[in-house]
Amino acid sequence: VLLAGVCATDLQLVAGYMEFSGVPGHEFVGVAESGPFAGRRVVGEINCPCGECAHCRSGRAKHCPERTVLGILGRDGAFAERLVLPQANLHEVPDSIPTEEAVFAEPLAAAFRIPEQVSDLAGQEAVVLGDGRLGNLCAQVLRLHGANVRVAGKHRAKLRVLDQLGFKTEAVATLEHPHSADLVVECTGSPTGLNAALTQVRPMGTIVLKTTVAVDQRVLLASAVIDEVTIIGSRCGPFDKALEALRLGQINVNALIDGYYPLSEALRVFKRASEGQSLKQLFAIDQGTAHLIKQ
Amino acid sequence: VLLAGVCATDLQLVAGYMEFSGVPGHEFVGVAESGPFAGRRVVGEINCPCGECAHCRSGRAKHCPERTVLGILGRDGAFAERLVLPQANLHEVPDSIPTEEAVFAEPLAAAFRIPEQVSDLAGQEAVVLGDGRLGNLCAQVLRLHGANVRVAGKHRAKLRVLDQLGFKTEAVATLEHPHSADLVVECTGSPTGLNAALTQVRPMGTIVLKTTVAVDQRVLLASAVIDEVTIIGSRCGPFDKALEALRLGQINVNALIDGYYPLSEALRVFKRASEGQSLKQLFAIDQGTAHLIKQ
Repeated sequence: VLLAGVCATDLQLVAGYMEFSGVPGHEFVGVAESGPFAGRRVVGEINCPCGECAHCRSGRAKHCPERTVLGILGRDGAFAERLVLPQANLHEVPDSIPTEEAVFAEPLAAAFRIPEQVSDLAGQEAVVLGDGRLGNLCAQVLRLHGANVRVAGKHRAKLRVLDQLGFKTEAVATLEHPHSADLVVECTGSPTGLNAALTQVRPMGTIVLKTTVAVDQRVLLASAVIDEVTIIGSRCGPFDKALEALRLGQINVNALIDGYYPLSEALRVFKRASEGQSLKQLFAIDQGTAHLIKQ
Repeated sequence: VLLAGVCATDLQLVAGYMEFSGVPGHEFVGVAESGPFAGRRVVGEINCPCGECAHCRSGRAKHCPERTVLGILGRDGAFAERLVLPQANLHEVPDSIPTEEAVFAEPLAAAFRIPEQVSDLAGQEAVVLGDGRLGNLCAQVLRLHGANVRVAGKHRAKLRVLDQLGFKTEAVATLEHPHSADLVVECTGSPTGLNAALTQVRPMGTIVLKTTVAVDQRVLLASAVIDEVTIIGSRCGPFDKALEALRLGQINVNALIDGYYPLSEALRVFKRASEGQSLKQLFAIDQGTAHLIKQ
């Protein structure tokens, strides 16, 4: 492992989500030690399906009930010097993509899941709820597909990053234009996110849920029925599209990097990653990336 | 008005839902007093849009924010000798459809909304949650479109009606085959309906929400995200399809009729309609239908 990124899911795992025990971490760039990519930089898809069940044979391998998931479910993850993944999960990183950008392949792929699930994004009025790491990447992917994107959040520094990327931003507490968005992407990480999304989406519009909140949410669903809203759960996405977008310079991930840290500072890094103003914390694990760490 | 049906929404309106004040009732057969259908039996679509706003001009007239809705929102309804609807809302009832069947046009149209929203129903494994009036009609419509339908409920008498219609039925408390249904249609009328649906739907499957519960629901949405479930709110549907299915004898609505009552017994009828074992109560309002009332 060269670099590994800290994700909100990691923070939830540490808090008890999924009853995970082991090494967390599922966003990484490494160097393959064997196989067709030996010696080359790789990123890796995190779901390891059985390959034999009805789901796997029906094109839903990412939903295999027997799967392990890197750093999340039954498989040690990327906050370590080494990790183990099936060769089939690996994608070689093109030489032109810096390691510091390639480490965003996994969350960026999750953002690229949206155009797989919602067609005809071009021209859609879209609202992204959440100014954090994933909200930022989703906003950039939606814009890349031609949507008109507003981002709503509650963190001044993160909204400023989005401003600088050219997005219209607003405070989530004072959202305007209720019930007008064709598409709302919910990336707040909050149990109140869906209710906020329901106030923004237009009748017959679509809400994409990215937040995995481990607690019950109190939702007033009558409006979803009356307004015939479509709510789509959205998880992992296509690594090839993420890497291609990085290669073409279509997505700015550098603006999201907060800092590089050694694994020995993991506790401090997790604490910082859980603060509202924090964007992406990266562990620089290999000697080849240690120079990135600011002392 | 010849006949008018009592719907769960009417019971909710009486309990305070929508803060409705006026004459309830939105399922009816009447005789048009004027216009192209004068003297003919008609049923009527319940949404009365403004016809001029952005929603109306975008093909979403049923979601016009300025709309009135018969017996639900700003417009007196069908539990009366007469009601007023725009001519454009009316559909003539073919002579071959008895009035006792045509009165189901509105809820049956709502069931026919599902194939408009979910494509390729043929061969899908579908579970309908709820053995009541709407669940029964949805099950019949799904079967008509080629789905393999199970119905889960908690009322012995209503499940028996579904048994007699040829459906596989089961008790909702002891649902088998979790996470295996391609499609779950939620018609329970209960705040716990969505959670039950989430236990039945397969990864990447679809839940259609028909229940408008006026209270907050406590929902564990993480599974919807992880399993990438699509949840679709569903309301009013196509009257032409409902009437055509009745004309062709494709839907059995007679099995759903509990009884006919005069308007003067409305309080007793509402009480009976709110009991778990009750199916469809009908008001026989005109002299021409009074003979249906059993003394």
